Amino acid sequence: MRIAIVGSGLIGASVGLAAKRRGEDAVVAYDADEGAAATAVEVGAADGTAGSLHAALEGADLAVVAVPVAVLAETVTAALAASGGECTVTDVGSTKAAVCQAAARSQRFVGGHPVCGSEARGPEHANGDLFAGASWFLTPTADTAPDRYRLVHGFVSRLGATPVAVDPVAHDRLVALTSHLPHALANLLLNQAGATRVDGPEPLSVAGGSLRDMTRVAGANPRIWVDIFLDNAGAIRDALAEHRRRVEQVERALETGDAGFLARWIGEAAGNRRELLAGAYPDPGDLHQVRVHVPDRPGVLAGITQALSAARINIEDFELQHVSPERGGTLTLLVAGADQSRYAAELLERQGYSALVAPVAS
Amino acid sequence: MRIAIVGSGLIGASVGLAAKRRGEDAVVAYDADEGAAATAVEVGAADGTAGSLHAALEGADLAVVAVPVAVLAETVTAALAASGGECTVTDVGSTKAAVCQAAARSQRFVGGHPVCGSEARGPEHANGDLFAGASWFLTPTADTAPDRYRLVHGFVSRLGATPVAVDPVAHDRLVALTSHLPHALANLLLNQAGATRVDGPEPLSVAGGSLRDMTRVAGANPRIWVDIFLDNAGAIRDALAEHRRRVEQVERALETGDAGFLARWIGEAAGNRRELLAGAYPDPGDLHQVRVHVPDRPGVLAGITQALSAARINIEDFELQHVSPERGGTLTLLVAGADQSRYAAELLERQGYSALVAPVAS
Repeated sequence: MRIAIVGSGLIGASVGLAAKRRGEDAVVAYDADEGAAATAVEVGAADGTAGSLHAALEGADLAVVAVPVAVLAETVTAALAASGGECTVTDVGSTKAAVCQAAARSQRFVGGHPVCGSEARGPEHANGDLFAGASWFLTPTADTAPDRYRLVHGFVSRLGATPVAVDPVAHDRLVALTSHLPHALANLLLNQAGATRVDGPEPLSVAGGSLRDMTRVAGANPRIWVDIFLDNAGAIRDALAEHRRRVEQVERALETGDAGFLARWIGEAAGNRRELLAGAYPDPGDLHQVRVHVPDRPGVLAGITQALSAARINIEDFELQHVSPERGGTLTLLVAGADQSRYAAELLERQGYSALVAPVAS
Repeated sequence: MRIAIVGSGLIGASVGLAAKRRGEDAVVAYDADEGAAATAVEVGAADGTAGSLHAALEGADLAVVAVPVAVLAETVTAALAASGGECTVTDVGSTKAAVCQAAARSQRFVGGHPVCGSEARGPEHANGDLFAGASWFLTPTADTAPDRYRLVHGFVSRLGATPVAVDPVAHDRLVALTSHLPHALANLLLNQAGATRVDGPEPLSVAGGSLRDMTRVAGANPRIWVDIFLDNAGAIRDALAEHRRRVEQVERALETGDAGFLARWIGEAAGNRRELLAGAYPDPGDLHQVRVHVPDRPGVLAGITQALSAARINIEDFELQHVSPERGGTLTLLVAGADQSRYAAELLERQGYSALVAPVAS
């Protein structure tokens, strides 16, 4: 296949790199910033650059539009206009309703959105593994030709992603719930904790791990996120309004001391958490957490992972949360099975650590 | 010192274990559940059990009350009544206003709250390292005698924790912001995503890493959390109401397409995130993320950590997020310094991985 990458930033160049790695495709990169296209070639994400959109699309079987959300709809429209009937056009934008509406009536367009977090920017950070294991939403419409859909479906599968077909409007509601609302709450939480003064230490200076975990995505690149929020404003507003309604429910339960409501509410969250984990782990009910406190110095992690690896214990999740250079950090392992987790704890204890084991889903 | 542990569950027994490890204290365990006290002795958290609260407190220099929040105030009051003038009483409850009010007028009481997450329960999971590096709030009042405060301050320091003095009411506002509000939002987020139906896949089945990160604390033990929410209902309601006000601000900005507000709001969150990390890392502006995709099999982590350790690269955070057994997972390292992070990426690339490097704070 001849593939044109239209917009060779991090995602575009990563698509090129992942495609090139398979060795079957010819890839040309086009970017309004000529330097970005040249870098894509340098890192091996494309065979060459094109000087214009028209030149990039000449003879292309597939155009992958990977430009910022603010210029997505116009770029897809331009790519459709500039390419011939043989060229299928797809994109990688985080929102889908607007671009699919802009491209409506074209049988050659299939909207796409790989779900892969990345804080980096620019083709110099391109990564051919970026899509491995990721969901990749595809949003065909009634106008999309089936063979165009099959072509894009096969392409993203070969990049290592799992295609998930969904209606464009449903897609935007889905990501409002599962990505944009979490992002908004992370920002809200940090800004409230940062702005509130109490008669004592600064809230942010004494916060524990739960606030740190919950705000990892906070303060993400404004140049990308302002456009995403605005482009999906309708669905995000709906999600925020529903969120407020649910917050009020909890406030009422606290006001009336409704222990039954709170217990059901927490229980429902536990069930939903199990469902969430089921997507990532074969048997989340079987997962155990093994926690040890470790000093902060090189070699400690190697010692631990070697011992577990020698015993053929498979670690599902492995997290070191750094506490401080003086006091070390907390290492949390996720291990499947009560026996395996006890064995892991035993191995850690033989190395002089005191391990805490607990089931993950209660 | 003679120490009485009143309530020998996970936290009480961990206090005993951490104290015993230093070898200077005699520890007696009392629990309404005799089996729990016996287990505390078995795991080495106490020298012996007491058959009653009175017996436990006989000759004690320090009583550590570690019972559930629902019976905390009454147990502290009973411990003060049952002990002599030589005995200092402290507790480990997650909320402080109610218990400090109940113990008011006693010079011998110093409220306490170690900030250490643990999903496990029961003395069999006691861990002498549980408090290493943790903040431990102490809430002396105008009635507290200075020497009683110094005694408790010294005691928690010797357990490895960092004492942080704060007013009891301010404490409850602090934890409402930094712990209880995050817990509530995690539950709210999961329950909204779980309850919303879209015309397509289940939201929970296609959620990415941001929702998983944000809901780690969701569905936490209802037997503990219902009481915490109710005991701190006032401060949590205030925090939720302020949260709602801030949500409305964002809704308005989305409605009016106010890109300036959104950019400032995200920028503020980025600044607050840096402040949050500053508590845990000496120079968060210098932190870099190194990300690779790794297969899911024993030995992979050992190979990576050995290589980094041999090169004396110090890893600040180390996280493997499991994607699936078939596709492997994403390993994210936090490394201080641009040079060190590039070197780490180089070492990983020599092992055949494709590494993505990006600064953490933008």
